[in-house]
Amino acid sequence: MIKLSASYLDVLSEWRRDFHRYPEPGWLEFRTTAKIADQLEAWGYTVHVGKDIVVGERMGLPSKEDMKLFFEKAKSLGANEKWLAKMEGGYTGALAVLETGKPGPNVLYRVDIDALPILETMNESHVPQQLDFRSLNEGYMHACGHDSHAAIGLGLAEQIIKHRDDLTGTIKILFQPAEEGVRGAASIVASDLLDKIDYFFALHIGTGVEKGVFVAGTDGFLATSKYDVTFEGLAAHAGAFPEQGKNALLASAQATLALHALPPHSDGSSRINVGTLHAGAGRNIIAPNAKMQLELRGETTEINAFYENQMRNILDGIATMYDIQVSYEKVGSAISVPSDRKLAEQLAKVTKALNIPTIEYQYFNAGSEDATYLMGKVQSSGGLATYSIIGTDLAAGHHNECFDIREEDMLPAIEIWLNILLHLGEEEK
Amino acid sequence: MIKLSASYLDVLSEWRRDFHRYPEPGWLEFRTTAKIADQLEAWGYTVHVGKDIVVGERMGLPSKEDMKLFFEKAKSLGANEKWLAKMEGGYTGALAVLETGKPGPNVLYRVDIDALPILETMNESHVPQQLDFRSLNEGYMHACGHDSHAAIGLGLAEQIIKHRDDLTGTIKILFQPAEEGVRGAASIVASDLLDKIDYFFALHIGTGVEKGVFVAGTDGFLATSKYDVTFEGLAAHAGAFPEQGKNALLASAQATLALHALPPHSDGSSRINVGTLHAGAGRNIIAPNAKMQLELRGETTEINAFYENQMRNILDGIATMYDIQVSYEKVGSAISVPSDRKLAEQLAKVTKALNIPTIEYQYFNAGSEDATYLMGKVQSSGGLATYSIIGTDLAAGHHNECFDIREEDMLPAIEIWLNILLHLGEEEK
Amino acid sequence: MIKLSASYLDVLSEWRRDFHRYPEPGWLEFRTTAKIADQLEAWGYTVHVGKDIVVGERMGLPSKEDMKLFFEKAKSLGANEKWLAKMEGGYTGALAVLETGKPGPNVLYRVDIDALPILETMNESHVPQQLDFRSLNEGYMHACGHDSHAAIGLGLAEQIIKHRDDLTGTIKILFQPAEEGVRGAASIVASDLLDKIDYFFALHIGTGVEKGVFVAGTDGFLATSKYDVTFEGLAAHAGAFPEQGKNALLASAQATLALHALPPHSDGSSRINVGTLHAGAGRNIIAPNAKMQLELRGETTEINAFYENQMRNILDGIATMYDIQVSYEKVGSAISVPSDRKLAEQLAKVTKALNIPTIEYQYFNAGSEDATYLMGKVQSSGGLATYSIIGTDLAAGHHNECFDIREEDMLPAIEIWLNILLHLGEEEK
Amino acid sequence: MIKLSASYLDVLSEWRRDFHRYPEPGWLEFRTTAKIADQLEAWGYTVHVGKDIVVGERMGLPSKEDMKLFFEKAKSLGANEKWLAKMEGGYTGALAVLETGKPGPNVLYRVDIDALPILETMNESHVPQQLDFRSLNEGYMHACGHDSHAAIGLGLAEQIIKHRDDLTGTIKILFQPAEEGVRGAASIVASDLLDKIDYFFALHIGTGVEKGVFVAGTDGFLATSKYDVTFEGLAAHAGAFPEQGKNALLASAQATLALHALPPHSDGSSRINVGTLHAGAGRNIIAPNAKMQLELRGETTEINAFYENQMRNILDGIATMYDIQVSYEKVGSAISVPSDRKLAEQLAKVTKALNIPTIEYQYFNAGSEDATYLMGKVQSSGGLATYSIIGTDLAAGHHNECFDIREEDMLPAIEIWLNILLHLGEEEK
Repeated sequence: MIKLSASYLDVLSEWRRDFHRYPEPGWLEFRTTAKIADQLEAWGYTVHVGKDIVVGERMGLPSKEDMKLFFEKAKSLGANEKWLAKMEGGYTGALAVLETGKPGPNVLYRVDIDALPILETMNESHVPQQLDFRSLNEGYMHACGHDSHAAIGLGLAEQIIKHRDDLTGTIKILFQPAEEGVRGAASIVASDLLDKIDYFFALHIGTGVEKGVFVAGTDGFLATSKYDVTFEGLAAHAGAFPEQGKNALLASAQATLALHALPPHSDGSSRINVGTLHAGAGRNIIAPNAKMQLELRGETTEINAFYENQMRNILDGIATMYDIQVSYEKVGSAISVPSDRKLAEQLAKVTKALNIPTIEYQYFNAGSEDATYLMGKVQSSGGLATYSIIGTDLAAGHHNECFDIREEDMLPAIEIWLNILLHLGEEEK
Repeated sequence: MIKLSASYLDVLSEWRRDFHRYPEPGWLEFRTTAKIADQLEAWGYTVHVGKDIVVGERMGLPSKEDMKLFFEKAKSLGANEKWLAKMEGGYTGALAVLETGKPGPNVLYRVDIDALPILETMNESHVPQQLDFRSLNEGYMHACGHDSHAAIGLGLAEQIIKHRDDLTGTIKILFQPAEEGVRGAASIVASDLLDKIDYFFALHIGTGVEKGVFVAGTDGFLATSKYDVTFEGLAAHAGAFPEQGKNALLASAQATLALHALPPHSDGSSRINVGTLHAGAGRNIIAPNAKMQLELRGETTEINAFYENQMRNILDGIATMYDIQVSYEKVGSAISVPSDRKLAEQLAKVTKALNIPTIEYQYFNAGSEDATYLMGKVQSSGGLATYSIIGTDLAAGHHNECFDIREEDMLPAIEIWLNILLHLGEEEK
Repeated sequence: MIKLSASYLDVLSEWRRDFHRYPEPGWLEFRTTAKIADQLEAWGYTVHVGKDIVVGERMGLPSKEDMKLFFEKAKSLGANEKWLAKMEGGYTGALAVLETGKPGPNVLYRVDIDALPILETMNESHVPQQLDFRSLNEGYMHACGHDSHAAIGLGLAEQIIKHRDDLTGTIKILFQPAEEGVRGAASIVASDLLDKIDYFFALHIGTGVEKGVFVAGTDGFLATSKYDVTFEGLAAHAGAFPEQGKNALLASAQATLALHALPPHSDGSSRINVGTLHAGAGRNIIAPNAKMQLELRGETTEINAFYENQMRNILDGIATMYDIQVSYEKVGSAISVPSDRKLAEQLAKVTKALNIPTIEYQYFNAGSEDATYLMGKVQSSGGLATYSIIGTDLAAGHHNECFDIREEDMLPAIEIWLNILLHLGEEEK
Repeated sequence: MIKLSASYLDVLSEWRRDFHRYPEPGWLEFRTTAKIADQLEAWGYTVHVGKDIVVGERMGLPSKEDMKLFFEKAKSLGANEKWLAKMEGGYTGALAVLETGKPGPNVLYRVDIDALPILETMNESHVPQQLDFRSLNEGYMHACGHDSHAAIGLGLAEQIIKHRDDLTGTIKILFQPAEEGVRGAASIVASDLLDKIDYFFALHIGTGVEKGVFVAGTDGFLATSKYDVTFEGLAAHAGAFPEQGKNALLASAQATLALHALPPHSDGSSRINVGTLHAGAGRNIIAPNAKMQLELRGETTEINAFYENQMRNILDGIATMYDIQVSYEKVGSAISVPSDRKLAEQLAKVTKALNIPTIEYQYFNAGSEDATYLMGKVQSSGGLATYSIIGTDLAAGHHNECFDIREEDMLPAIEIWLNILLHLGEEEK
């Protein structure tokens, strides 16, 4: 087993803090991507950026204003124009490819790189504040650890180059955009650069797992679909001509009730939430408009699809009931795919050899992840996929303004991913 | 002015009590119609029964069981088979026609003859109980005074014959079926026997008007539509497979809310009521069915039509929302038509001459009446129409099990209708 | 292992067909109980009937009319007046007690004896019809197999007497009333005759388990509460004075939506169903009343309790919203209690020795059972409890008008229960 | 009859354009009030400002930020500090009092002075844009004509002084704040400066009445209550712990349906509108909050009160149903009071003498007005009150960004009000 020197943590921390300082939300990771691509290219990887890999339709795009703002900011911060050109219009993310030239498996690692629209705390007990790497993009924050994921991806890339001579097959590392809101993976999964993968690895830091502990394989991500719904009715003076209005507020209220009253599913758990609703033009006006943000989840992809179908029925029916226009846009989605127990087992052998406390397989009933699209693609073409958790100490929960990780927990993640690469398929031999 | 002898009340009372004893609900007035037709024919009228006049589609038909039951009962009570043959299938009601042979106006009088599904009280203070003419059709009752209307119609017919030589033009008396639930008139109005009427008269006894007082013309009947709505979903075990059901109960609940939440109308008042709802097959079953009885009302026919359109949207939308079948059947309707002030004025002259306390014109905001269909037809072909009220003492409100009238108030109704016939159009000469 | 002679099936079938012929629904098992009690007493058991064991409040009582009807019918069929006296008012069910006089465990067997309000088919392919033991209580039917449960209970009682000399401790057999609608057990569980039980056995025939197969222990019964809800508002004429009404139909519709829109629970699955709703007095009347039958279920007793609390909030709130009276009565309930794996294991040893294909432990996610109250009592005082399934061929699903079992599957049930009695606690020795 | 010289229009226009240029919304009319008070004082009136007259609780107060902003702006524009001191905290508005010293009636004129939060058009066809008096308070606009009302009030005050010697009794002119949203009058009506008024006059320009035409008396203002409703629930992760949330969005949706489903009232028309709804904290969060703006209206004050009571029931009930906090604040209200026909008649005599085309009395079914509070007070102490309309050409409807009046229509308003003052009570002599 190869161990990294403790001092390598300094390199990782520097990267992580740099990403932390310049958080960019989904589809706007212009500077982040450019920095990563520069580094990967310098190490000798073939680097695919933006439209090279983002081949499908993108969900949950930001506004044109934000698009311009973050693009210009990246430019002003010195992002490489070569990469920016490929990212124009929000086509972010990068794929590093290394052909070893020796026969061997196709291996894909995936890390995510986007930040959240959260205002980072200025509390003095917050380490990024103390050590001066608090977000400089006011209102945005790496509050889910993707800064460390990006650093782990870079560290892995560098270590792979160092051990290049011992490696076989083709190695790919995907720095995926727009994981928050589960928007990015579905747009990338169709890229033929991701075809015929034999082994797939993804990970997350934190999520409640104890520091120092490694969970090799997981199951339980809920399939999910996120929708933005728009109701367009007709305004009328509520006192003078109430019958002339087409009440979009009332329609959205009734749709909310119908959605929340959908039945449970006997095949497994499900969730439906209308999270936000904004409707109306004034107290004395029959409301001509409403906007709703909702999400559906299912323990299986099929359950989630069942609720998508029900939602469509409800919204189409509401449009008829109130004689209004109702449109809905999918702004995020993930499927439910379990890790392969066999690959988790292989990974666990490596971690045990590294003396890392390991949970081989765990069921999480927490949330959703769009890495599942990639896992599903790999599995359906005969490959193996696993999603791991690397434990850490959290200063506060994910998506909290005080969120922070213990940086030293990044190091073993790279060790594990490097060593599994050297021992893949051994068992089978 | 012609006055009737007080003893003629005995004749009227005998008729009225006979009708009261054998109450028949709408479309089942077999015995009532046969008895009236026999009498009319004996006096020399041309009598049209059943299908001769019921030419349109009928709303709110009773069950086949009741159809058979009342038909057989009428037969066993000796109803003339000649008339019964014309009424088979529930085509009840009669039209008496008298051609005077002298040029003159076409005049139509209309009375209604159906009873209600109400169990008549056995209270000893109830006059029909005391005098032994309480309903013999248990569960049915003349609780709205149509027994007296029928008697007034017969009395008028007899008096007209007595004064035949003084009369001109053509005189018709319609004994209309199924006024309760506003079902009958819409099925008869298209009959060409009712074309080109110059003067139309209808009346109601009671309705809160003081005994002895006559209201010559009225306005304010609300247009209305009555619907029966059926929801057909799919049953499923609520514990084991809730997602397999299509919940008709939930659908009907949501439809109810949507219907009651329809906006008011700036052109006038309106009413919407889901009066009954019966849904479900068992506590632990996703409800596969629901039935709803509703009614809409509008100050104008147009307002009522607005709500009919809204109702259709709601029910069609609900069907889509819940992926169920929703069907609705119109089981009653009336329009909103005001009396002609000019005819009310003529009538008032007659009543004043008869020394009857008279209100020339009054706005009632009470309910609905399907005589409005006939009034509308008359007015649209250039004739004049009025709907009058003849005051009485009510023992209890209309549709109450203790309802009863003061019989002597039938007499002036006939005097008024007879005398107006002798003075019609005088003013214009 | 003791095996019963095949001819003993004739005895069992005779009992079962007799019970099938006279089905009595919950709290009305007058004849059934009397017949069982006579038999038990004849064999030498101490027999406790009715109020001797039904010590708690009873849920879901039938109407006074039915109470009288079934009581009189039982009397006319010759039910022993001694037992009838103890059952007056619907206190049905019996407990047989046998003190062996030798030190040993307290063992309780429980079978249920009530029928369902289902009209049994007259189809010639229906065995009870062919063999002339179709229900003579028209409209009621043993459509869930409790007739066979009662026969198994009697057969066990007889066999125990035959092997009395080999037995130790105290043996009790409970013939429980009113399991349908999960009403009976909660009323009996507090009886001190059921204290300090060491071993508890209950079973069900059918439920989808293959004929000849025995499931020794089960888990997965959902905790449940059944409620009848009554809404009392105020009638008003919907056209004339809509604002004077207090709309119970609208209130119940809104309550239905709120109940169905309750959130899922992260601790496990749940079910909420408003199964029936009947509201209103007439199309043109603001509905003064509504009645609702609903049920709640939870994977754990705590989850079910969570929804009971939510339901109370909703109904109390609805009462305030509509200024009406809302009352709710619990008419059934069961808790969620798993079988003890240790006892299932002991039982499985017996069945394997009897060469009966056996599933040691199975999770059912089907429905609810009030035997769980007894299981919970036993476990909480340190005893062991298990709920078994005895497979059979079903002619149609439970609660279907064509339901029927394969009678020969009753025999092994008695063999198993008899043999386990002879081997209880052996392992521990 | 006294006629004003046509050139006086220049004076009026200058005032009106100045007010138009500096529009201030309700409770923030600091500069407007100060300017008016300066002028009134200069002419010799006793002037009561702010807290001198605003004695009741104020509804619909603006934010502290806006309070400060408009106050500072008024100061910077040179508003008299003497008046500003009395208005601190948003106590705006002024009352001019003139004691003639001769016995005579107490007369009160009322004009309103506040603007709307509407961004005025920059369209070149818009006269204020062409003539350079478009709003300088960006986002606020005199889009309802209150700038002309204020000018009419000032013009009347000046003319009264000119004819002081011919006048008797006490004359008061109220420049009322915060009429928009019907907030101001209810806070002022209790002032004893407004006690014992014999004659009360108010007016509005526009409202669809033809230019040059004067409506002397009106009826039909709907009583109204405006409420802001706040729902406070509890956030929870919608995927992980849905049962821990208290869903304020769902609660507000259900409240909306219940409010819109309130029945019509048989005593007259009514309106209920939930105009805006804003709820929720994020797509994947059980919504912890909601805010609703609603209004109720009734043809009579009693009808409106009926709906207020219903609203309270609904909101209190919703709080119980969802176990959340629901609070509601009345932010505006008006009652329904008809003009006195007798006073309208007197006024009409004056206008006819002035050769102004006059409608003596008209029923408007348009909206609401809080002058009704003052009218009610006057009438209940035995005085007479009328609300008039002065017709004009409107460039666009009230509250539209292109709204504009024909300035010359201000002149006759002053002539009418001046002349009626000279002829009050003549008839009675």
